[in-house]
Amino acid sequence: MAHKLVIKRGKKAGAAPGTLVHVGEHNNAEVTLQVIDYDQHHLREFELHHPDDCADLLTSDSISWINLNGSHQVPIIESLGKLLQLHPLVMEDLLNTDQRPKLEAYDGYLYIVVKMLQFCDKTQEIRTEQLSLILSDRLLISVQEHPGDVFNGVRERLRNGRRQRLLQADYLAYTLIDAVVDHYFLLLESLSDQIEALEGELVTQPTPNTLSKIHHFKREMLLLRKAVWPLRELLSRLMRDENPLIGDETRLYLRDVYDHTIHILDTIETLRELLVSMLDLYLSSINNRMNDVMKTLTLIATIFMPLTFIAGVYGMNFEFMPELGYPWAYPAVIGFMLIVTLGLVLYFRRRHWL
Amino acid sequence: MAHKLVIKRGKKAGAAPGTLVHVGEHNNAEVTLQVIDYDQHHLREFELHHPDDCADLLTSDSISWINLNGSHQVPIIESLGKLLQLHPLVMEDLLNTDQRPKLEAYDGYLYIVVKMLQFCDKTQEIRTEQLSLILSDRLLISVQEHPGDVFNGVRERLRNGRRQRLLQADYLAYTLIDAVVDHYFLLLESLSDQIEALEGELVTQPTPNTLSKIHHFKREMLLLRKAVWPLRELLSRLMRDENPLIGDETRLYLRDVYDHTIHILDTIETLRELLVSMLDLYLSSINNRMNDVMKTLTLIATIFMPLTFIAGVYGMNFEFMPELGYPWAYPAVIGFMLIVTLGLVLYFRRRHWL
Amino acid sequence: MAHKLVIKRGKKAGAAPGTLVHVGEHNNAEVTLQVIDYDQHHLREFELHHPDDCADLLTSDSISWINLNGSHQVPIIESLGKLLQLHPLVMEDLLNTDQRPKLEAYDGYLYIVVKMLQFCDKTQEIRTEQLSLILSDRLLISVQEHPGDVFNGVRERLRNGRRQRLLQADYLAYTLIDAVVDHYFLLLESLSDQIEALEGELVTQPTPNTLSKIHHFKREMLLLRKAVWPLRELLSRLMRDENPLIGDETRLYLRDVYDHTIHILDTIETLRELLVSMLDLYLSSINNRMNDVMKTLTLIATIFMPLTFIAGVYGMNFEFMPELGYPWAYPAVIGFMLIVTLGLVLYFRRRHWL
Amino acid sequence: MAHKLVIKRGKKAGAAPGTLVHVGEHNNAEVTLQVIDYDQHHLREFELHHPDDCADLLTSDSISWINLNGSHQVPIIESLGKLLQLHPLVMEDLLNTDQRPKLEAYDGYLYIVVKMLQFCDKTQEIRTEQLSLILSDRLLISVQEHPGDVFNGVRERLRNGRRQRLLQADYLAYTLIDAVVDHYFLLLESLSDQIEALEGELVTQPTPNTLSKIHHFKREMLLLRKAVWPLRELLSRLMRDENPLIGDETRLYLRDVYDHTIHILDTIETLRELLVSMLDLYLSSINNRMNDVMKTLTLIATIFMPLTFIAGVYGMNFEFMPELGYPWAYPAVIGFMLIVTLGLVLYFRRRHWL
Amino acid sequence: MAHKLVIKRGKKAGAAPGTLVHVGEHNNAEVTLQVIDYDQHHLREFELHHPDDCADLLTSDSISWINLNGSHQVPIIESLGKLLQLHPLVMEDLLNTDQRPKLEAYDGYLYIVVKMLQFCDKTQEIRTEQLSLILSDRLLISVQEHPGDVFNGVRERLRNGRRQRLLQADYLAYTLIDAVVDHYFLLLESLSDQIEALEGELVTQPTPNTLSKIHHFKREMLLLRKAVWPLRELLSRLMRDENPLIGDETRLYLRDVYDHTIHILDTIETLRELLVSMLDLYLSSINNRMNDVMKTLTLIATIFMPLTFIAGVYGMNFEFMPELGYPWAYPAVIGFMLIVTLGLVLYFRRRHWL
Repeated sequence: MAHKLVIKRGKKAGAAPGTLVHVGEHNNAEVTLQVIDYDQHHLREFELHHPDDCADLLTSDSISWINLNGSHQVPIIESLGKLLQLHPLVMEDLLNTDQRPKLEAYDGYLYIVVKMLQFCDKTQEIRTEQLSLILSDRLLISVQEHPGDVFNGVRERLRNGRRQRLLQADYLAYTLIDAVVDHYFLLLESLSDQIEALEGELVTQPTPNTLSKIHHFKREMLLLRKAVWPLRELLSRLMRDENPLIGDETRLYLRDVYDHTIHILDTIETLRELLVSMLDLYLSSINNRMNDVMKTLTLIATIFMPLTFIAGVYGMNFEFMPELGYPWAYPAVIGFMLIVTLGLVLYFRRRHWL
Repeated sequence: MAHKLVIKRGKKAGAAPGTLVHVGEHNNAEVTLQVIDYDQHHLREFELHHPDDCADLLTSDSISWINLNGSHQVPIIESLGKLLQLHPLVMEDLLNTDQRPKLEAYDGYLYIVVKMLQFCDKTQEIRTEQLSLILSDRLLISVQEHPGDVFNGVRERLRNGRRQRLLQADYLAYTLIDAVVDHYFLLLESLSDQIEALEGELVTQPTPNTLSKIHHFKREMLLLRKAVWPLRELLSRLMRDENPLIGDETRLYLRDVYDHTIHILDTIETLRELLVSMLDLYLSSINNRMNDVMKTLTLIATIFMPLTFIAGVYGMNFEFMPELGYPWAYPAVIGFMLIVTLGLVLYFRRRHWL
Repeated sequence: MAHKLVIKRGKKAGAAPGTLVHVGEHNNAEVTLQVIDYDQHHLREFELHHPDDCADLLTSDSISWINLNGSHQVPIIESLGKLLQLHPLVMEDLLNTDQRPKLEAYDGYLYIVVKMLQFCDKTQEIRTEQLSLILSDRLLISVQEHPGDVFNGVRERLRNGRRQRLLQADYLAYTLIDAVVDHYFLLLESLSDQIEALEGELVTQPTPNTLSKIHHFKREMLLLRKAVWPLRELLSRLMRDENPLIGDETRLYLRDVYDHTIHILDTIETLRELLVSMLDLYLSSINNRMNDVMKTLTLIATIFMPLTFIAGVYGMNFEFMPELGYPWAYPAVIGFMLIVTLGLVLYFRRRHWL
Repeated sequence: MAHKLVIKRGKKAGAAPGTLVHVGEHNNAEVTLQVIDYDQHHLREFELHHPDDCADLLTSDSISWINLNGSHQVPIIESLGKLLQLHPLVMEDLLNTDQRPKLEAYDGYLYIVVKMLQFCDKTQEIRTEQLSLILSDRLLISVQEHPGDVFNGVRERLRNGRRQRLLQADYLAYTLIDAVVDHYFLLLESLSDQIEALEGELVTQPTPNTLSKIHHFKREMLLLRKAVWPLRELLSRLMRDENPLIGDETRLYLRDVYDHTIHILDTIETLRELLVSMLDLYLSSINNRMNDVMKTLTLIATIFMPLTFIAGVYGMNFEFMPELGYPWAYPAVIGFMLIVTLGLVLYFRRRHWL
Repeated sequence: MAHKLVIKRGKKAGAAPGTLVHVGEHNNAEVTLQVIDYDQHHLREFELHHPDDCADLLTSDSISWINLNGSHQVPIIESLGKLLQLHPLVMEDLLNTDQRPKLEAYDGYLYIVVKMLQFCDKTQEIRTEQLSLILSDRLLISVQEHPGDVFNGVRERLRNGRRQRLLQADYLAYTLIDAVVDHYFLLLESLSDQIEALEGELVTQPTPNTLSKIHHFKREMLLLRKAVWPLRELLSRLMRDENPLIGDETRLYLRDVYDHTIHILDTIETLRELLVSMLDLYLSSINNRMNDVMKTLTLIATIFMPLTFIAGVYGMNFEFMPELGYPWAYPAVIGFMLIVTLGLVLYFRRRHWL
């Protein structure tokens, strides 16, 4: 489940560093490699089933984007690692879907981990999917957990021939990260709409369920921040570190996506504080209603207890109760009761209870 | 709506970086360009309808301030961008009204985003409007979302011939930012007055509505801080970065507006903490009143329950209840009831309940 | 009012930077300039009414301390500015009494703003007064809002001939700041005494008023911190910046007053946290008392409701209620009632309610 | 007890720095030294009982890992210190099991302290065990408090001949730290599972016990953070300090375990905030239930008090109560009572109390 | 009183910087100077009554530790200052016992202020005593407020001839600071034991007094942190600043005491958070008990109110109430009452109220 706060990596603990074990949701789907190979004039798009089939792409002059759908098959990751001469730790991390977003520079390539987030309408929860990028000179490998991603726009632009900038692999990597971050905005919009709707509900008609929802959104915000916060540092380092794999022009674009990330974090913080204020509002409204209930009870008791007592007095069976014999006694007592009631009502009105 | 925490940018997500799409409130108004072109001795003021008409201004020796009212028309922004050779990301950001205040240095020009804030008396909410500035050597472009701004004072000073300092475009940019920040003070004054009024109300006559107002002000403070906080870093960088577009004299003035920003942020924090303390005060006052209600109830119940019980006893229909036959029994019971009542009242007075 | 969180500067907003407008409490008092002019052997003390009368002091070899009582008269500040060739922003700030404490270095002089604080016994509030210092080579100008300050000790020492160190204007400026900071200690002592008294009251006899007082002190602490916090940075920069106007010996003394400022900030934080803990204590004590009230009510109800019910049963008018006829029935019922009461009392005692 | 927040070091205080006194749980077990001595081709594994027996290992060319089970015997630590020429402070720290994780560089060796954590199923508490590492050129000493650790995987890999990297002592030290950190993940998984189970329980069936559990988990989180937080700085320094004992290849691996530590800290923070939100949820659910109870009470009282009063009125014994004589009076009163009841029920339904 | 949050320095404010006035508890005790003068082979220990008697110690080759018991006599401090040529600010600070722990480097000597803390069993409060150290080449002056300190261990070691390291005055200063910090551990142990005992009490038997205790411990923690926090920076600077008075070997030891200080601060933070969590637990347990009380009340009311009403109905005096005449009516009504009671009990049991 994407929603777990901590992903089981039990079988992993105690293993040697660099041991290749899949950590994540169980998955039986076949792994496919979607390749887009292009230069200024041509574009080829095809699907492979084994990393070894990509060998010739590595030496060609064109830009290659290899997208691996499924990070759960150890042998495939192993072959990929061998082919690209990846560090054992990178291979280990490709298999481990419970990574913190990070950037690691190795000789000749960069290893980047980010989180794709999707709002699942059915469970009303955010689903997390890990995206690993390996960026070298003319090659970009992207590894995701499942087929289906947020990169269709990028593919379209490649196909449509808008490839000037995309002729650099670093810019291609940037567009993928940009697409991921753009998707965060969609998520935030959706969450923010729901939170503002809840805010309205809070004022008009709070129910105990409102509270569970506030808790639910707080939880989602925690998850979101956990995914986005490290991205900030990642992008800041990508922008500033003097790595030859990142061109100056791309750095300008990275500054833009960095600004977006800060903007998203600001918004998360604002929503979190709004949720805290909403909780206060909710608790006070419960208290206010309890107050109303208590007032009603007190009102009723204060009016009827004295009356019942008076009735009780004249229900006593003493032989010598002279007033019982007078004809005007009954209406007098009823009248007295009315006066008491009236007096109490006036008293309560003056204390603003009615 | 200016008050939304997150602005919809749905149609934007997934598009290529630098794609020109308007993000913001729907707007059909015509876009106008107000130009003020001046040097030490002359000042021309006129209105244009297309950026291409400004072409000759770019090459003249005079200072030109071009104010674009309306950032929603993609073709206009596109023409402007072409004319000034702006980076695609700048053009994109001009159209996107959900930016975080920021400063970006490009070759030959600076791109600055700040937020104009206005308190809308009708909705009791802060309205945000984005102001983009493009500052180059003898040219300042300002792009706002709607006509109507806080720059009338600046225009007046230009017209009145107080133009010594304003002969530098960087100083002109500073005066615009200064006018925006000065307006924040007005906003804070208004909010602070309202909050202090609410504080008084809290002591004299708290209502459930008080609570909604506290929540409302907290929300406004969140929005305000979100708009002002990034300005601090922006101005700090504008002051310190060694950009030739900013003169030394202007840096002194930027230091002043930087101090104002810090002052505003301090005040926002103080007001936020005051609101938190007010919420505590409110909650406690509810609790205190609940306590009073409970005491009243308990008082009434404690006095009348025993009395009613006694009346009930002598209302029983046993044949052999000797006391029922004595003439003094009735007044004795009434007397006993009075004594019980008196005793309880004294007891409560000693426990400070009355 | 000194107690306002935000001072009105309405008429100011929109004006040109450097525009000279008084921002602060309305004030009609005449402005006087107290001059103390001294060297190692002589000391002259006199009062002037216009800055232009000071012209000859600027060129003399002696140290001059000019104290301006009243910052509300625009023409006086303007003359002063002209005479000393002050930057327009400094003149503007001299008139604006809603400044954040700050240090600004200009060519040939330093501009320092600090806040004098005084506890007003009548309103139980802290009154803020702005003190601006202009320090140049052999001249110190101090500008305060009203006559009456905390510098009598400094004046006394000058008159009494203890002038060795005071022959440097920077040391004189330090002694003024030191006097201001020393006064903060007095203020804190007074507040701390009152807060500790309130703490005692909280334990022995909390009233709803206690809560308002806690809120009041929190508010004062917010104001205090707002005034002192920026002083820390100001002094740190005064100590470290390599400005020739500040001598090495004076830096040692500035380190001392810097330590005092940190000490004051620590104490403010401690008092703030103490106030938070006191609020918790207060709220819990309310809750505890509510609990006691509820217990009393429940006790009374639990004892008398069953008894009243039994009495009610034997008050029914059925013709065939055999027990009504037995002579021992009445004492038996009374006895049963006593047993029920006793049983309930024992039950409550076992549950620690009595 | 491992669970104490502060470990007694009473007998220690006042002693000279470097005094050798055991600080920790009392322990009588015999101390053993497990030695694994290996090079590329051979591996010897044996057990010693006194550090002096290791003397020849120090001069050999092979890598030696000496694992000391039990840090409570002063003479053994003293012999070890003499043999390796350890600084007195290191010897002192080896005996003191209440250390903060730290890294100290001495001439020729590094001294590292980390905490092994284990979840004790019986007491539902985290048990802390101190692990000290002394790393020199071809030697690694590990000192733990009790036999039994998390290093069986490491031993297995050594025995199985996968020793390429492990031929460097720094890499061996890394694998031990990595095993410790991997175990933190297991702990977090277990805690996170329990906290999420508690979260479910909170929604379906909160009991007062739930609250104790929340408190218990908060306490565990405090302990956990206290153990992990300093590890972050430790690893960061190990990675960055230019100590010749740590090879470049190992630094890459340390970066990996550093990332894991950050990940763990993130998760701890997230769980802590989740616990805070759960507490809010719990408190509100109590409040909600109290509200329900109060409503029931008010409902019952509001319906039966007026009815009882009416019955009481017609139970009065006045001689002249004409309605008592009419045959339809009794059903009329019963009917009136039904109408009152119905009216109140409708009233409550309209106010959403039923 | 040591427990005051702010110490009166009233008479001090307004005085010239460097004015010698005692700030602290009033004290009449005679001041004594305990001198320990030693080199590798000899040790002399004697008591003096005036600083001037120490003059010859300053020029000797041996190490001298002069311990001044009592910082309240201005003339003594003045003589000491003259003798050692101390800066006026140092003399002022020696007399002022309300200092923040700090380190100040002067020409030829270091001035260090730390706080000795002692738990007073009688008042259950922490008592603070200021310790000032003046460290020069072969001389260490320590000034404390009262006789009686935590240095007996140090004296013993000097007497017993373990003086190798102690031949350096900087190491002697370190041992004094180390003794002070070791004493903090004792204090924390005691506080932590009491807090954990309170935690147990909280679960088994919370009383209103528990709350006062939590508040009391919070207050103590605030005081403790105020004393320890600045020590961290002090030691860090002592370790890193390149002052020739501190030898390299001593720096290693300072690193150790620095680590202890961090450890203490960590523990203080942990205890503070534990106290916050305990407060939450306490408040919830009050709420839970209030809930129980309310449930009891509601139960009783809900059962007896309907029954009393039924009894009331048959107590009405209508002439035509046919059921009153039937012999089976009375048992039938009693039976009906039993059924109602049973029904309600079952209803409550189903809602888990019983």
